[in-house]
Amino acid sequence: MTTTAKTPPSTALRPPIAGRTAIVAGNGQLPVAVAESLRKLGDNPLIVAIKGEAEPELYAGEHAEISIVELGGLVKILKAEGISNVVLAGGIRHRPEFRAALRPGNGNLVALYRFLRAFRLGDDGLLRAVIATIESYGFRVLGAHEIVPDILAPAPGTLTRKRADQESVANMHAARQAAIMIGSLDIGQAAIAIGRRVVALEGVEGTDAMLQRVAELRHAKRINRKGGVLVKCAKPQQEVRADLPAIGVSTVENAVKAGLKGIAIEARRTLILGYGETVAAADKAGLFIETFEQEPS
Amino acid sequence: MTTTAKTPPSTALRPPIAGRTAIVAGNGQLPVAVAESLRKLGDNPLIVAIKGEAEPELYAGEHAEISIVELGGLVKILKAEGISNVVLAGGIRHRPEFRAALRPGNGNLVALYRFLRAFRLGDDGLLRAVIATIESYGFRVLGAHEIVPDILAPAPGTLTRKRADQESVANMHAARQAAIMIGSLDIGQAAIAIGRRVVALEGVEGTDAMLQRVAELRHAKRINRKGGVLVKCAKPQQEVRADLPAIGVSTVENAVKAGLKGIAIEARRTLILGYGETVAAADKAGLFIETFEQEPS
Repeated sequence: MTTTAKTPPSTALRPPIAGRTAIVAGNGQLPVAVAESLRKLGDNPLIVAIKGEAEPELYAGEHAEISIVELGGLVKILKAEGISNVVLAGGIRHRPEFRAALRPGNGNLVALYRFLRAFRLGDDGLLRAVIATIESYGFRVLGAHEIVPDILAPAPGTLTRKRADQESVANMHAARQAAIMIGSLDIGQAAIAIGRRVVALEGVEGTDAMLQRVAELRHAKRINRKGGVLVKCAKPQQEVRADLPAIGVSTVENAVKAGLKGIAIEARRTLILGYGETVAAADKAGLFIETFEQEPS
Repeated sequence: MTTTAKTPPSTALRPPIAGRTAIVAGNGQLPVAVAESLRKLGDNPLIVAIKGEAEPELYAGEHAEISIVELGGLVKILKAEGISNVVLAGGIRHRPEFRAALRPGNGNLVALYRFLRAFRLGDDGLLRAVIATIESYGFRVLGAHEIVPDILAPAPGTLTRKRADQESVANMHAARQAAIMIGSLDIGQAAIAIGRRVVALEGVEGTDAMLQRVAELRHAKRINRKGGVLVKCAKPQQEVRADLPAIGVSTVENAVKAGLKGIAIEARRTLILGYGETVAAADKAGLFIETFEQEPS
């Protein structure tokens, strides 16, 4: 008999990870959570903060800072600091103009180009190439969830007091189909369905901006049907060591503003940043959060 | 030898259409263009303006007005006015809450429900059912392009002085694939690709709002790559008598603000509202407009 965790996941710490770990930190709370988790394990992670992206609090500990157009220098930093493991965590809001960065004399251009696209830029093939490149230098690339396993969405079930009603289940199906489809084309990882119709698809703007758009469409009476569901799921071809879809308290807050009834995320391939706070925020607002299994395609 | 019109289409008027025509007018310039075209042919169309949607100038001629939740009464109006043909033209910005409209005693609920979804609500199966319902009362349903044939995008080619460069062709391919995909799921009919990646997909917000979003993402430096292409195409399962995708001067203006290099639309299944002005606006701004054939899937 196998056991699955539908209830709040265990907070037990994982065994320490061999060797020192570098967190290449984009924006958001994920790099912070990874750093905290490693420190609890007694590790002293090196933060490699991406300028203009990483949270200010990450600069409190031992850190290096690189600009997104200087990422070619990352390997040098990793070597100098005796790093064994690398975690790519967080998003990149400010997407660089590659042409400008790829001027002659910029050194290690291929690695640079690959790195530039490693985060949320979403090109899975390239992301795999980046990871392969880092590993070719002898580093081990880990997914954030390998360090903070409690961060992964649990097995299929309901995380909140509220459950999805029949209409919401229909919305989930519609949005999930769309989210998987745009994921398969490597465009985005989220969709919103209201009244059993998909009304918004995630592109570069990200989930919070998409939720705000739906809030505005409701305000302008462009959407008058009640309810609705946000679905986030991994791409069918997802590289699980980077760019896993994530939700957190802000997702719940924006879903409330958008008038949605709930959030459905893929079990085990979605991150919940701050499980307790996120579920508590949903419970307080009367939203449901459910997890689902991605069906084999 | 077959001839295809790549240059501005002929402005010759079509032969008069037998019987009187009603234009059920949603928002935008399409109903206005249909009305003008019919008047040039010597017809006296009845405008059935949808309240809060139809352009004010449509109220100048002979008209009736219906609220979106009173659409069940349409057949009665059509019969009373001795209508033979019906054109469904324009979009519906303010989507009704069906539940509220479907309260008991509201009469002819099935027809009402069907009508409510007939326009841009995009459910193709339902749209076909609406058309079949109207036809079951003995009316003939025409596409706007059957009355204003010059409005259809011409055969594959370039309409502007500027042509798509190699990068733009790659953007066209990426955005077209995404637009067809979301069309097949009946979500939207447009996508934008920049740097060979799809950055925005059309949902309920519509094409202009999607272009404005891309303009904002550029302004916030969330997109730093230059160029980009807007693609609009019909859904694979498109009912061509309603809801054909359309572009016009405002599309060009918003594409300019979004920093795009051009617009690609499906040949013969996209409407150009104001061909001359639209192409002139693109030429003035240095944008290209190209038409393409939808590949068999």
